[in-house]
Amino acid sequence: MLKPEILDPQGRAVQGALGRLGLSGVADVRQGKQFVIELEGDLDDARRATLEELAGELLSNPVIENYTMTVVNDEAGA
Amino acid sequence: MLKPEILDPQGRAVQGALGRLGLSGVADVRQGKQFVIELEGDLDDARRATLEELAGELLSNPVIENYTMTVVNDEAGA
Repeated sequence: MLKPEILDPQGRAVQGALGRLGLSGVADVRQGKQFVIELEGDLDDARRATLEELAGELLSNPVIENYTMTVVNDEAGA
Repeated sequence: MLKPEILDPQGRAVQGALGRLGLSGVADVRQGKQFVIELEGDLDDARRATLEELAGELLSNPVIENYTMTVVNDEAGA
């Protein structure tokens, strides 16, 4: 997701389109990327640290983007 | 997010890169778009229906993509 201080022209265009197509009161729209990464085995601390590093430097551009990471357990007991 | 039966070359490329950069056991990566839409006022049923329609036909391509919508209450009592 682009940092709040970075202009997001695509988000701005979507905001305008939503208003014209009948959704009133849209205060802001920001567009970003999403990666769904499926891992085999457990996510231990070392793998999680590697993943955080790669998310911050490979999958996002740290100059203009922030990222958030959410861990979802797909299997019971995982 | 691209439907599961649609090939995702960008996700495949990220999967390969993660493996080469030290993250083992990456089973699958899918890349998609994310829109953060900030609304003024309450999200009543009519606005929600409009938003679902626009999400399914404007923000995503229903031929090749699925979408999910998550509502987050930003303010207390909202």
